[in-house]
Amino acid sequence: MHTTKTLLQKAKPLDKYARFVPTHATFPLGFETASISAGIKKNNALDLGVIRNVNDPKRARAAAVFTTNKFQAAPVTVSRNVLQHTKGEGVIATIVNSGCANSVTGDQGQEDAEKTVDLVSKHLGSDSSENLSLVMSTGVIGQRLPMDKLENGIEKIFNDKKAFGSDFNSWLNFAKSICTTDTFPKIISKQFKLSTTGQTYTITGIAKGAGMICPNMATLLSYLITDLPLSSSAATSSLKYAVDRSFNCISVDGDMSTNDTLCMLSNGAIDNQMEDITEDSELYDEIKLNITSVAQDLAKLVVRDGEGSTKFVTVKVINSENYADARTIAESISNSMLVKTALYGQDANWGRILCAIGYAKLNDMRALDADKISVSFVTTDNSEPKELKLVINGVPQLNLDEERASQMLALEDLEVLVDLNTGTETAQFWTCDLTHEYVTINGDYRT
Amino acid sequence: MHTTKTLLQKAKPLDKYARFVPTHATFPLGFETASISAGIKKNNALDLGVIRNVNDPKRARAAAVFTTNKFQAAPVTVSRNVLQHTKGEGVIATIVNSGCANSVTGDQGQEDAEKTVDLVSKHLGSDSSENLSLVMSTGVIGQRLPMDKLENGIEKIFNDKKAFGSDFNSWLNFAKSICTTDTFPKIISKQFKLSTTGQTYTITGIAKGAGMICPNMATLLSYLITDLPLSSSAATSSLKYAVDRSFNCISVDGDMSTNDTLCMLSNGAIDNQMEDITEDSELYDEIKLNITSVAQDLAKLVVRDGEGSTKFVTVKVINSENYADARTIAESISNSMLVKTALYGQDANWGRILCAIGYAKLNDMRALDADKISVSFVTTDNSEPKELKLVINGVPQLNLDEERASQMLALEDLEVLVDLNTGTETAQFWTCDLTHEYVTINGDYRT
Repeated sequence: MHTTKTLLQKAKPLDKYARFVPTHATFPLGFETASISAGIKKNNALDLGVIRNVNDPKRARAAAVFTTNKFQAAPVTVSRNVLQHTKGEGVIATIVNSGCANSVTGDQGQEDAEKTVDLVSKHLGSDSSENLSLVMSTGVIGQRLPMDKLENGIEKIFNDKKAFGSDFNSWLNFAKSICTTDTFPKIISKQFKLSTTGQTYTITGIAKGAGMICPNMATLLSYLITDLPLSSSAATSSLKYAVDRSFNCISVDGDMSTNDTLCMLSNGAIDNQMEDITEDSELYDEIKLNITSVAQDLAKLVVRDGEGSTKFVTVKVINSENYADARTIAESISNSMLVKTALYGQDANWGRILCAIGYAKLNDMRALDADKISVSFVTTDNSEPKELKLVINGVPQLNLDEERASQMLALEDLEVLVDLNTGTETAQFWTCDLTHEYVTINGDYRT
Repeated sequence: MHTTKTLLQKAKPLDKYARFVPTHATFPLGFETASISAGIKKNNALDLGVIRNVNDPKRARAAAVFTTNKFQAAPVTVSRNVLQHTKGEGVIATIVNSGCANSVTGDQGQEDAEKTVDLVSKHLGSDSSENLSLVMSTGVIGQRLPMDKLENGIEKIFNDKKAFGSDFNSWLNFAKSICTTDTFPKIISKQFKLSTTGQTYTITGIAKGAGMICPNMATLLSYLITDLPLSSSAATSSLKYAVDRSFNCISVDGDMSTNDTLCMLSNGAIDNQMEDITEDSELYDEIKLNITSVAQDLAKLVVRDGEGSTKFVTVKVINSENYADARTIAESISNSMLVKTALYGQDANWGRILCAIGYAKLNDMRALDADKISVSFVTTDNSEPKELKLVINGVPQLNLDEERASQMLALEDLEVLVDLNTGTETAQFWTCDLTHEYVTINGDYRT
């Protein structure tokens, strides 16, 4: 039997910053970012950031997906209103502060978030009737925004001509300015060549981690910034598609904080003559899949930074009678405390995996047949054999190669493969292990 | 910031055996129990037990509630069949083994469970066409029952005239024989006087813990044994009512292991002349509530024995527009990993409680109004003030009496009181904290 000490020893800290933060990147045309320390966080850390579009504002489009929590923070309500009023057209900036979530702050919090948008809009040349910016906040909840610090910070950003930039460090600092319990800033940039037009465009993704894999309270913020020309409706629908297959695959549906916001800004700067891409465009599907790919890579980084986690686990459910039930099963395994502790303990516990499959709330019973199901561990490195079958057609493999199982479970990356053998659909979730360090971190967050 | 070490120090082991196991009790008339070590578990621990009715078998009634997991262990299927064939009438025994769950064992497992029932029935005087016993198993899954040991054990029990008894130790040993990761056997016995007839009857409850509060895999077994005369249908309906308000309030609905079984045996021995009590009887409601009370006390013992837990927390949601949503909210708070770690860390984190309320999946939005909700900690000991308000009408109390909060959070027993202020319904859940010890225990169960 392992003791606490042995398990603690197993969990070696990884230098995640060195491994997951890039040192250079290409960014979308026509955007600039600025970030400063406004004194909201302690220790002079970066805590206020702006991304703004400097291309023709007529081409600017914004879209967002918000938390479904019934308690919604003031910035969520205000940003939602901005998008409703503008239909996402002409929104050319987004401002964010960390250190204070402006959540459960009542009417005053609402006024504070509205004032923030007004101040940014004014600096961007808007009269007071037009809101040009989204607003987000993350940090402690139940406390008022320190508006004096925030106002000073906004003045500082917009009055300093050197504040905005489009170089690597400007973007990286923005990524840092939104961090809370994150151990590394999450930023990725990808270029894609459209197969039909040959045009290359860029998507930059920035996120702050939920901290934990089920972001019950920790706020998830994510930005997808691209120089593609998208119609307002295409921006919204492609973002929703991407979020469903990325950030919604690392968390229980609806299991969201009061502040969770995932937004996309596009500005068409890649070619100002090019028409808006709509959902009917032949380019749309290709673009949607590329946006999804960036969102997935970004969501995986959030899992990599799961609080106290030592493992990155892909749960893949294949050959399902339908997609929804495959997804429900992947989610059920990913959220099981028993599966997550077994992974931490490097225990090839197929029983807990089967059990989590068995209590998944399926819509269609045909997706699951106990006598057809197979479960394997699959490695993602080059070691062989890549697959270790734990259950075949419902029959546990009692003479398991325990040595190989131990090798696989000692790896940082692992895939749990569930073959339902009832159809052709596939779903994936990404999860991490549940560790002593998780309990330590969350046993004492507020103080 | 607390370190792992500090948190580990906080978690002082409690002598739960001394506190929660009685030293004497009165048991229902007309029942006997036997338990032995059959060699299924290691170390000669008790691992095979039988409860049998020795009153007139015509009065014997059995009812059961089984796991909703889609993978159902062989004993679940077999016991379900027994109840279907007999309609719960004339079932005069129940046999249980620990050490092997006979789950995910295919057709062979099914045959083994059937054979177990046959053997017990034969010893009780049945020809092979009549099944007189239920069967349950708990322990490791995916392994065949050692039938030779089981058969020898059954022979030993029924051939030894001294094996069965109705004294305190006989019942206590039965409670021990079903334990797996439990740190103490769970047994309670209560006597109730019927208000209309003045008749006093007895209910004994025995359970084995799920080990953890969400029994994903660990098996929950429970027995309610009474000398009341119940009709078959009244036994079933009162058991369901009781389980919904007890064992289903310590676990996510459907979040059950492959083996979970809660059964009730009644034999009418209190008065063999008394007619069966049916759901139409004027005594029924009173009896149902008394059965529920025993089931609740038993379910609370399971929470007390939550793996690695240091706290027993009652989550009470009052003044709800409807019962179902009050229950969903209580469940959501009780299952939140962040609430559970905050309780462990003795952190008055009302934000996590509100958040768990906010993502509860309600049927009727009218049950929740963010501006009406109040949240308090309430002590169950005699210290004053008993209630500490964290949130009043949606407004967090920022000048919290932190000293009193610390005192309350240091107590072993605590109530989280949520006042929805939208109606008159109340629901309760019972939960425990999530500790380093939980991770240690579950990080290495199989090996």
